[in-house]
Amino acid sequence: MTTAEITEKLLAAKKAKGISFEDLEKVVGCDETWIASVIYRQASASEEEAGKIVETLGLPPEMAEPLTVPPMKGGLDPLIPTDPLVYRFYEIMQVYGVPVKAVIHEKFGDGIMSAIDFSIEVDKVSDPKGDRVQVTMCGKFLPYKKW
Amino acid sequence: MTTAEITEKLLAAKKAKGISFEDLEKVVGCDETWIASVIYRQASASEEEAGKIVETLGLPPEMAEPLTVPPMKGGLDPLIPTDPLVYRFYEIMQVYGVPVKAVIHEKFGDGIMSAIDFSIEVDKVSDPKGDRVQVTMCGKFLPYKKW
Amino acid sequence: MTTAEITEKLLAAKKAKGISFEDLEKVVGCDETWIASVIYRQASASEEEAGKIVETLGLPPEMAEPLTVPPMKGGLDPLIPTDPLVYRFYEIMQVYGVPVKAVIHEKFGDGIMSAIDFSIEVDKVSDPKGDRVQVTMCGKFLPYKKW
Amino acid sequence: MTTAEITEKLLAAKKAKGISFEDLEKVVGCDETWIASVIYRQASASEEEAGKIVETLGLPPEMAEPLTVPPMKGGLDPLIPTDPLVYRFYEIMQVYGVPVKAVIHEKFGDGIMSAIDFSIEVDKVSDPKGDRVQVTMCGKFLPYKKW
Amino acid sequence: MTTAEITEKLLAAKKAKGISFEDLEKVVGCDETWIASVIYRQASASEEEAGKIVETLGLPPEMAEPLTVPPMKGGLDPLIPTDPLVYRFYEIMQVYGVPVKAVIHEKFGDGIMSAIDFSIEVDKVSDPKGDRVQVTMCGKFLPYKKW
Amino acid sequence: MTTAEITEKLLAAKKAKGISFEDLEKVVGCDETWIASVIYRQASASEEEAGKIVETLGLPPEMAEPLTVPPMKGGLDPLIPTDPLVYRFYEIMQVYGVPVKAVIHEKFGDGIMSAIDFSIEVDKVSDPKGDRVQVTMCGKFLPYKKW
Amino acid sequence: MTTAEITEKLLAAKKAKGISFEDLEKVVGCDETWIASVIYRQASASEEEAGKIVETLGLPPEMAEPLTVPPMKGGLDPLIPTDPLVYRFYEIMQVYGVPVKAVIHEKFGDGIMSAIDFSIEVDKVSDPKGDRVQVTMCGKFLPYKKW
Amino acid sequence: MTTAEITEKLLAAKKAKGISFEDLEKVVGCDETWIASVIYRQASASEEEAGKIVETLGLPPEMAEPLTVPPMKGGLDPLIPTDPLVYRFYEIMQVYGVPVKAVIHEKFGDGIMSAIDFSIEVDKVSDPKGDRVQVTMCGKFLPYKKW
Amino acid sequence: MTTAEITEKLLAAKKAKGISFEDLEKVVGCDETWIASVIYRQASASEEEAGKIVETLGLPPEMAEPLTVPPMKGGLDPLIPTDPLVYRFYEIMQVYGVPVKAVIHEKFGDGIMSAIDFSIEVDKVSDPKGDRVQVTMCGKFLPYKKW
Amino acid sequence: MTTAEITEKLLAAKKAKGISFEDLEKVVGCDETWIASVIYRQASASEEEAGKIVETLGLPPEMAEPLTVPPMKGGLDPLIPTDPLVYRFYEIMQVYGVPVKAVIHEKFGDGIMSAIDFSIEVDKVSDPKGDRVQVTMCGKFLPYKKW
Repeated sequence: MTTAEITEKLLAAKKAKGISFEDLEKVVGCDETWIASVIYRQASASEEEAGKIVETLGLPPEMAEPLTVPPMKGGLDPLIPTDPLVYRFYEIMQVYGVPVKAVIHEKFGDGIMSAIDFSIEVDKVSDPKGDRVQVTMCGKFLPYKKW
Repeated sequence: MTTAEITEKLLAAKKAKGISFEDLEKVVGCDETWIASVIYRQASASEEEAGKIVETLGLPPEMAEPLTVPPMKGGLDPLIPTDPLVYRFYEIMQVYGVPVKAVIHEKFGDGIMSAIDFSIEVDKVSDPKGDRVQVTMCGKFLPYKKW
Repeated sequence: MTTAEITEKLLAAKKAKGISFEDLEKVVGCDETWIASVIYRQASASEEEAGKIVETLGLPPEMAEPLTVPPMKGGLDPLIPTDPLVYRFYEIMQVYGVPVKAVIHEKFGDGIMSAIDFSIEVDKVSDPKGDRVQVTMCGKFLPYKKW
Repeated sequence: MTTAEITEKLLAAKKAKGISFEDLEKVVGCDETWIASVIYRQASASEEEAGKIVETLGLPPEMAEPLTVPPMKGGLDPLIPTDPLVYRFYEIMQVYGVPVKAVIHEKFGDGIMSAIDFSIEVDKVSDPKGDRVQVTMCGKFLPYKKW
Repeated sequence: MTTAEITEKLLAAKKAKGISFEDLEKVVGCDETWIASVIYRQASASEEEAGKIVETLGLPPEMAEPLTVPPMKGGLDPLIPTDPLVYRFYEIMQVYGVPVKAVIHEKFGDGIMSAIDFSIEVDKVSDPKGDRVQVTMCGKFLPYKKW
Repeated sequence: MTTAEITEKLLAAKKAKGISFEDLEKVVGCDETWIASVIYRQASASEEEAGKIVETLGLPPEMAEPLTVPPMKGGLDPLIPTDPLVYRFYEIMQVYGVPVKAVIHEKFGDGIMSAIDFSIEVDKVSDPKGDRVQVTMCGKFLPYKKW
Repeated sequence: MTTAEITEKLLAAKKAKGISFEDLEKVVGCDETWIASVIYRQASASEEEAGKIVETLGLPPEMAEPLTVPPMKGGLDPLIPTDPLVYRFYEIMQVYGVPVKAVIHEKFGDGIMSAIDFSIEVDKVSDPKGDRVQVTMCGKFLPYKKW
Repeated sequence: MTTAEITEKLLAAKKAKGISFEDLEKVVGCDETWIASVIYRQASASEEEAGKIVETLGLPPEMAEPLTVPPMKGGLDPLIPTDPLVYRFYEIMQVYGVPVKAVIHEKFGDGIMSAIDFSIEVDKVSDPKGDRVQVTMCGKFLPYKKW
Repeated sequence: MTTAEITEKLLAAKKAKGISFEDLEKVVGCDETWIASVIYRQASASEEEAGKIVETLGLPPEMAEPLTVPPMKGGLDPLIPTDPLVYRFYEIMQVYGVPVKAVIHEKFGDGIMSAIDFSIEVDKVSDPKGDRVQVTMCGKFLPYKKW
Repeated sequence: MTTAEITEKLLAAKKAKGISFEDLEKVVGCDETWIASVIYRQASASEEEAGKIVETLGLPPEMAEPLTVPPMKGGLDPLIPTDPLVYRFYEIMQVYGVPVKAVIHEKFGDGIMSAIDFSIEVDKVSDPKGDRVQVTMCGKFLPYKKW
């Protein structure tokens, strides 16, 4: 089974059973975006977490194991994404990447925001002029080491 | 004066006067990241905002006008950034782009998070295991129109 | 069934029954280009719209469901298209992109034409020197937010 | 004088005199977007048209001649534009390029919309929910020749 | 049947029957290079022309229909071709593209040679020092429209 | 003096004196497109030919020498040209490259059309429906050597 | 049978029978590298040569015909090869390409070394400090034609 | 002084004094292609070799020192060269790279031809049908180490 | 069996039997990273080594032979890797490549670190602030040859 | 002063005074490769460290300040380096990237080697068969966070 086939099977089961990512969050006890990342094979779960996901989706237990393997991550094709929703994150990096870098360096010194010791959450913010999507990223600041 | 020269002059004055983006936030009344975006010519200010920025930095008033012009935005070179801090945002898009898309569609339907009717903020979150960088993006949900 | 297979099946049925996009426009009550976008999996329909499309093409009702899913959009391969008709739109962007940007900024201020709250229509304009293709794009102006 | 310097001089004069592209349209008798294209050196004017543009901008007559030369057109850098406004046209091509191709072939047969025997206009459409940008492209249909 | 499969079937039949493109030219009444373009799915034929091609190759009549569909054209992979014969045309464009542009503008004004209202022929020119390949392209001159 | 500066000087002199490429053809005794290639530094002339070009343009004799140096050829930027006239040759290669390859192999066997032992000419073909540009390429057929 | 499948079959047979390229050289009477090029479908053989190759490898005679077809050549994927042995040739071109060009022009005038009327041979040169690979390329000098 | 300026000065002096690379070979006692590589800053000379080159070209002794610095090598722009002579080496790698790899592995085992412990020479081979360019590369075979 | 299938089979057997790369190191007597390279088909083993690997994994002996073939190496897709762990090596090259080059040249003169006569090892370094990954590369210094 | 000019000045002073990176290591008390990284503007020093570097090189104290600014890092041009020494690190990533990933995951679990909390050292290892370059990278293991 290729990575894409695993994802497809899990999504099909999720759709057939009418289970949302939010439902999975309640069962597994982890954030829904992280669970979506496990299903799209961008993150690896513990055996227990994988087991709960698979069981909730009504799939046989042997579907759990592949979800625990550290995957080849990334791999959006093409390198500059064309899907408008995904592209907006590329655009944000293009437009605000350097200003954000300047502010982070001013606040923290030379270093980066980790994308590994990191979380990303999606929330709906109600607004009379139209609901808003809030994406909150939170990563450990890693100062450059000298040696 | 090219765009790069305008930015360079403003940053030199800012450094010479020891003014932080946070100081500018207090004077101008807008978020520091947005002000950094104006200085890096990724956003355009009103005449009043531009005037305050320029005055605070101790620069002559005619420096304000170029900050009000809608700039050619983006333009990170190369297209896939090599600076480690900026690259992490590319990596986040590669790794979490599709899971985030799935969660947004589940919560909102078919559409996108606007990168125009949009804000981005940087905060320091104290943590005994090491401070964390929090980046909060908030954009209007734009549903696809049918016609 | 992959996305490409769904499109292929719909187009084959459309051809076999001799139904034009214009015929579908009359049945569904939406513009023919939008309907073509649904069939090429660049837009998602409501269940009712999808049902009408599928029924008109003489296909079984279960073909309707996939048309309601928000698809991975774009994905023209290669990134700079080689099909002469599609390339002309790339050429128009290359040649007229910056002048159009200048005119829009002069008329509206800093912001963009939305490609989401957006419609695109194709019309035939009769002309004794040779018919003309008229493509009308109409998108909401989105001013840049400050924060 | 390089092409970029010519454009810069004309835009500086236009700004200094407070003349809009619409003002130039009235003087020259051609559409404002086409005039913007001449100024950005994407189109070439007749000597008379170039003379009127230069005169209206209060520039010396010898500035007119370079505007009559067929320029190297296009040349947006990078090939996939990062400016959000210009990018939207790339996105439209990515998302709607193939559906538009299908509709044009159905209405006209095998051929293309010319990008040479072609006009492009920008209009403001008032709308209580927010003004809209309307871009109208109109190009001669060119059927493929057989030989 | 994919486009590549159609081409493969036609070429296999052509080889098996020992028919040359020149033979097809005599039957169909169109130039051999154009007929090769139809078979490689870069051009679309009328039903009558497609019928003659298919019949001459000894294939069943239902093979004719796909040849009448306007195809996705181009699509050489990779974008800069590596086949030495095809690459020579890329090299000619690289080396002589700008000089040819200069001569065309001097002879015709601002505009292009159409690649749609266009023919291309291949001839053998006998030469005691070694035969020569003559490629003759002939396209309508399209002057840039003003508007 | 860079290559671009040499070209610029020659073109400026040519314009100032009102000399066409066709005029140069009569003086030098070589085709006008080849002369344009020398001026754009894509071809190298003999000392005598270079001397005639320079003299006819009213430039000092020391301008002749650089035209005799074998240049770095090609170098269109970007690799896939965006100028509409030059792009059409790229499009022709994309659309007709493989059919032309098939016809050449059928007529000549395995080998290529030389782009070195090669000429390219541009002619105006009068036509009541609009003049046509005729480009004639003629290169030695080079069969693949076995060893 | 695709091109890759033909190559695979021939290589499998060659391995199974324990035949080296050098053995094939003796039977066919052509250089081993050229024979390898035929097997990898980068060169086309005569019917007689193809017959000998196929017979020596113990394959049925109908395997010979595909080896006589002029193939789509090149096609290394990716364009800048990552295999270390093949990459070294790219590196040699990057490092020594311009110096070699300078020496060839000094010795021969403006023109190129043909890669068609061309041979390439591989030899082992014994050396006490470690054997050396000698690659000898020999191509006809083709002077640029004037016209 | 940039690298390009050093090269330019040396080539100008070489031309002015009418010295060939072959002349330099006799004075320096190294191959002419290697000397050309030093001048184009792709190789570094000893102080003595650099001194001889500079002296023979009639340049001041301080020009010698920069020739002893290990340069940033390669850097052909663009990555796939467009100059026809240099491109032929790219084409040879595309067409014959894999067959040559197969032959080297058969003769030597798993490893590469070094491009560092390596020489490249250019010779003229007289031939009544037209002189030939012979390029001889000779690099140490480096077997892959196991560890 | 394609290269990817061989790797997949070996990894599946390794997982099923619960054998680590370190276990294989003990059996084969070579470093675990090198063994991983053999399994991912980036290195070729001797028959004996391949036999031990296959036997330890409980696979039939005929699986050993493909591991002795020199493979097409590299081939990470895409060229700039998106997997965060692999990308870090790209980032290290981008950030520290030139400083490392400067230090190597100062210590060794003009030349390179071989990536063929080369070993790479991975070790875990315990650290109370968090374990560290140590990667040790060791390659023969190859000085540039003169000729 | 641009970043490149700062580097150039420091390297020129270093050369003029005959100071090695190793000498700087003794004065500054940090590793020579890290100091080279500061000079090439890939790392930022403290004021004290920058002061010592500048003083040792005999430069005025105001040269120290720019070395304390967090730079735009990376930026090797082109993205796939052509300098043979730097390229070898790209090749190592291509060939050994995936095996190294497999070994790290087996030893540490899902996560990466940090390139920020990271050191890189270059050592000369004497060897009778030719000295060897040893590059030791040591980065903190960062396990993927769940949330």
